[in-house]
Amino acid sequence: MIIVMREGAARESIDRVMSRIGADGLKPVPLVGVERTVIAVIGDERKMFVETFAAMPDVEKVMPVLRPYKLAARESRPTTSVIKVGGIPVGGPECVVIAGPCAVESEEQIVETARRARDAGARILRGGAFKPRTGPYDFQGLRAEGLRHLATARTETGLPVVTEVVDPRDVSLVAEYADMFQIGTRNMQNYLLLKEVGQTRLPVLLKRGMHARYTEFLLAAEYVMSEGNPNVVLCERGIRTFETYTRNTLDLNAVPAIRELSHLPILVDPSHGTGRRSLVSSMSLAAVASGADGVILEVHPDPENALTDADQTISCADLATLMPRLSAVAAAVGRKLGA
Amino acid sequence: MIIVMREGAARESIDRVMSRIGADGLKPVPLVGVERTVIAVIGDERKMFVETFAAMPDVEKVMPVLRPYKLAARESRPTTSVIKVGGIPVGGPECVVIAGPCAVESEEQIVETARRARDAGARILRGGAFKPRTGPYDFQGLRAEGLRHLATARTETGLPVVTEVVDPRDVSLVAEYADMFQIGTRNMQNYLLLKEVGQTRLPVLLKRGMHARYTEFLLAAEYVMSEGNPNVVLCERGIRTFETYTRNTLDLNAVPAIRELSHLPILVDPSHGTGRRSLVSSMSLAAVASGADGVILEVHPDPENALTDADQTISCADLATLMPRLSAVAAAVGRKLGA
Amino acid sequence: MIIVMREGAARESIDRVMSRIGADGLKPVPLVGVERTVIAVIGDERKMFVETFAAMPDVEKVMPVLRPYKLAARESRPTTSVIKVGGIPVGGPECVVIAGPCAVESEEQIVETARRARDAGARILRGGAFKPRTGPYDFQGLRAEGLRHLATARTETGLPVVTEVVDPRDVSLVAEYADMFQIGTRNMQNYLLLKEVGQTRLPVLLKRGMHARYTEFLLAAEYVMSEGNPNVVLCERGIRTFETYTRNTLDLNAVPAIRELSHLPILVDPSHGTGRRSLVSSMSLAAVASGADGVILEVHPDPENALTDADQTISCADLATLMPRLSAVAAAVGRKLGA
Amino acid sequence: MIIVMREGAARESIDRVMSRIGADGLKPVPLVGVERTVIAVIGDERKMFVETFAAMPDVEKVMPVLRPYKLAARESRPTTSVIKVGGIPVGGPECVVIAGPCAVESEEQIVETARRARDAGARILRGGAFKPRTGPYDFQGLRAEGLRHLATARTETGLPVVTEVVDPRDVSLVAEYADMFQIGTRNMQNYLLLKEVGQTRLPVLLKRGMHARYTEFLLAAEYVMSEGNPNVVLCERGIRTFETYTRNTLDLNAVPAIRELSHLPILVDPSHGTGRRSLVSSMSLAAVASGADGVILEVHPDPENALTDADQTISCADLATLMPRLSAVAAAVGRKLGA
Repeated sequence: MIIVMREGAARESIDRVMSRIGADGLKPVPLVGVERTVIAVIGDERKMFVETFAAMPDVEKVMPVLRPYKLAARESRPTTSVIKVGGIPVGGPECVVIAGPCAVESEEQIVETARRARDAGARILRGGAFKPRTGPYDFQGLRAEGLRHLATARTETGLPVVTEVVDPRDVSLVAEYADMFQIGTRNMQNYLLLKEVGQTRLPVLLKRGMHARYTEFLLAAEYVMSEGNPNVVLCERGIRTFETYTRNTLDLNAVPAIRELSHLPILVDPSHGTGRRSLVSSMSLAAVASGADGVILEVHPDPENALTDADQTISCADLATLMPRLSAVAAAVGRKLGA
Repeated sequence: MIIVMREGAARESIDRVMSRIGADGLKPVPLVGVERTVIAVIGDERKMFVETFAAMPDVEKVMPVLRPYKLAARESRPTTSVIKVGGIPVGGPECVVIAGPCAVESEEQIVETARRARDAGARILRGGAFKPRTGPYDFQGLRAEGLRHLATARTETGLPVVTEVVDPRDVSLVAEYADMFQIGTRNMQNYLLLKEVGQTRLPVLLKRGMHARYTEFLLAAEYVMSEGNPNVVLCERGIRTFETYTRNTLDLNAVPAIRELSHLPILVDPSHGTGRRSLVSSMSLAAVASGADGVILEVHPDPENALTDADQTISCADLATLMPRLSAVAAAVGRKLGA
Repeated sequence: MIIVMREGAARESIDRVMSRIGADGLKPVPLVGVERTVIAVIGDERKMFVETFAAMPDVEKVMPVLRPYKLAARESRPTTSVIKVGGIPVGGPECVVIAGPCAVESEEQIVETARRARDAGARILRGGAFKPRTGPYDFQGLRAEGLRHLATARTETGLPVVTEVVDPRDVSLVAEYADMFQIGTRNMQNYLLLKEVGQTRLPVLLKRGMHARYTEFLLAAEYVMSEGNPNVVLCERGIRTFETYTRNTLDLNAVPAIRELSHLPILVDPSHGTGRRSLVSSMSLAAVASGADGVILEVHPDPENALTDADQTISCADLATLMPRLSAVAAAVGRKLGA
Repeated sequence: MIIVMREGAARESIDRVMSRIGADGLKPVPLVGVERTVIAVIGDERKMFVETFAAMPDVEKVMPVLRPYKLAARESRPTTSVIKVGGIPVGGPECVVIAGPCAVESEEQIVETARRARDAGARILRGGAFKPRTGPYDFQGLRAEGLRHLATARTETGLPVVTEVVDPRDVSLVAEYADMFQIGTRNMQNYLLLKEVGQTRLPVLLKRGMHARYTEFLLAAEYVMSEGNPNVVLCERGIRTFETYTRNTLDLNAVPAIRELSHLPILVDPSHGTGRRSLVSSMSLAAVASGADGVILEVHPDPENALTDADQTISCADLATLMPRLSAVAAAVGRKLGA
């Protein structure tokens, strides 16, 4: 940690910072410059609170040197982690496609989607049983019934299932049916929920908060991992910016950036990342080219009649058309995708 | 709802949109312009899904006309609602000051803060027993013990208490001790939690998500209200922007804007809204001048030794200095504040 | 244009809006709904001012139906425009790579870079002679001398040259030496400059403002085109968001989105779009996969000793390594890139 | 400057950074920590390029310690500068109100507005003769004729005049008529224009770029000042965020923050900062309470018929109503405003 004192800081203010550092068991090194004094801290700064020093008299700013997460950090593991989801490895040489409807609407709908997605080359089925909706009057999902339909679709197709959990009280129920939990963008900092899924060993698909910096995204992963569950897969799904043509701004910089910062696999969700069906294929191709470990796509047999997210959902036929193009791009960047 | 068709939209596409509107029990009115056809919908558009129409062929964009919330809307009530918090009215002629530490650290600390805050003129005590922290290794609060300390401070000072609830399973526990729930910025879209507090009648201090538009903020209030609890007080606490000098960008436009859109009272939190102690007083004065129904301030007897948010916390002495200035500004805009 | 009146709008307010529309030579169509009256306008709304109606009593909001640009719009031209830059087509089947240093530092530096970039497969040379720098004490470019060095590099390598113009008074000087003007992100709304380059016929590489919505980006292109110069090439270069790890957030959604909205070619600048050398290759691949008509890259023989943008500049050797990977991705999405 | 090396950085990488610092005439101090080596730089870091070090092998990040501006910095002057605009002091004990129409439309319009604004208590007249408009088909201002009308209004009322300059070639023409230049938000980083007005001694009203951080805002002021013109008045006018109800998000945090960072006076523009007439009064009061040195307001005798910005312009009558309220708030915070 580096503590920058104000120009003309009082001698006592500097001494006070120095002795506080000492009191925390670390070593302060004062550096007297022409304009300002800077105090460097030798030792594990994670034991200290940035805010404490920022609050002391004559302190201008405090700059952390170390990253605040450890288990999720690249330094803790030189190669990308491979997380198995119902037998399917995520983070290995193969890019995976996860596909399925935004919401499970009926057994028929989810089974049909699963079949067509599997036949197109998707490896994992997605589908929401519990839907967090912005308005209280919107369709909220089939809940337990939806979970059962997902399980049926898995039996019928062999595809493992990922589905969102929104309530810490539902974690064990969802774990009975799903192969992977999804934590949605609005819950990325729902720490209770993170801890609850951290106490299982089921893989967790953690979506980036639409307002989260990379550091916060990785701290959310750290919450899950620090409870004992190392099976976290990250997912970039777009952030909120001033642009209004797209629902979100898909931040593909996140893919190589997270690769530098963490050993966890990272997927991309172009459906939410754009909010427009017409942009989904292009951004899926871009995601794979950027080095993502896969994409997660909203797919429906009849998008126009989907109960949720109709405008960003592609049809099963679109998926079948997209898959060979994704495979070609994956091959061009040295990855494998699909059969 | 207004549905704008693409230039050169096919006749069938237009017919399809028209019949879908009819199927939903509403009346479509086609308007044939020079470049485009536009279809207006007569009836309660809230019954229809924007996304469904956005997903149909040849539809360029869909523009809702009505606001998606009802109970929280200004139209549902011509005057600002007055919400009583342990006997203290929020939203009436008096601006209220809510003060207290970020976190409850000990009985002594919270009781001393409460006394000094009350003596300075604060009306309600704040203090966190359950702390949602960005990193898993940070101090997470005293939990149930913290709630008991808050209750002690209330007994000692007569100040009603507001404290954050983060887990739907804790709602009844917190309700035993608190006079008002706080829903934090990271939980503004934790719908489970919103519904849970909506099933009580205790007032709810709902903080704006750092990434939330006004409409989403009011939809979160609607979640609480639609469960039967009308006692919602809104709180602007800063949004995330590209600026890095301040922790957040306090959006005071929200005060008069929310006043136009809703009848709910609105407070301002300049502590989180700036993240810098040196800016808190100026922004408190600005908040009152903008028309806010009060401010909520982080106050600690010894901010430098606070366990959390030290850098944005003012001292009890600072609060005592600030109060007469707040009163003067309140008087200047026709409100009353303090004794 | 759709004008939404407030709930309970006065009869006179509605009449006033109607007669104002009539006065502008257009036809108002009132739609009386359950809660609100909406007035649709038939005719070319571009003749009216949104703000005028928004300012009238009892008007709640005004929603334009048409796009405010015409020449740049997709509707004005069904296929992507091909713009020739010194003989090299941009927007055709071939993706082009534009490469070169941030700033021209010496004749030797620019000629060496140009040779190595050309040998690697780059088609156009970039290099700044006039540098807009955030601080007044930073290196501001070699100016006229830099232009002469660029011309020398062109003679030596045959590569056409693109260079930034920042002052309307320099437009004719730059036009003597360059094959294409660059308008930088900070000047995207410098309308004087846009008009000045609009009065030439030299191609213009228009970079997106770091704060600009797609509509504003296309309106900036419209400024150039409305002066008579149709040769505009757009360039996505990252927008400003809350993320701090990267200098900007490269918005690749812009590529397919602009393709829908406009017939102008669109390039991507991953150097500025990330601000980090280690992310440039991945994002170049992603840009090509997203459908961009090419990329523009900061390349220097010895990036560490570059006078500007050292941290986002790749070496000539890196470019040589990247090119075959870019070609492979281009081929995978049905484009050609490089020899 | 603090240079943080990667974990496990090679000995040569560290030596290379050290010797590069020495070569720049500064002194490197290595600090060997448990996980990382950090190198502190003693001396005037402004002579070095952050980017150069960021580009060197094994460098993780570079953190500047000093602020990059000097003349504009608070440290260079302990009290707020008072800038005289045609005899009216800005930055002194009195808060000033600058008022006038967005655009000069006719002699009659500007003279009437000036009279009524002066009678209400405004001290300076604003009005645009050169209008930078987002679209090329919008009204662009009366240009030289507008300047003459402004001069007439000054003669008639005694109010000094501020007007925008957008073209470096117009600086001397505008200086003939105006008492203060305005640099608009889109030109905050038009460095040519900043330098050109820096070469005069006329006061400059510098509006914050809608995407600019405080540091960049102050660096823009530094551009003007480094050319020899110390008469810079800053103006917060709203930044672009994800909120869509308001045109911009007025950032009042900027007022006390800039006060800490700089000695330059700071005004607030609630008209552009909200984009909605109904919010202007509340935000003007808030601006004065936050400590601003004044406000600049768009005022028109007949806003509905204004040619530009009608929706954010208040009437002369509204101004007359607002003034005593502004005075009351100014008095409450220890300032004077109006007669």
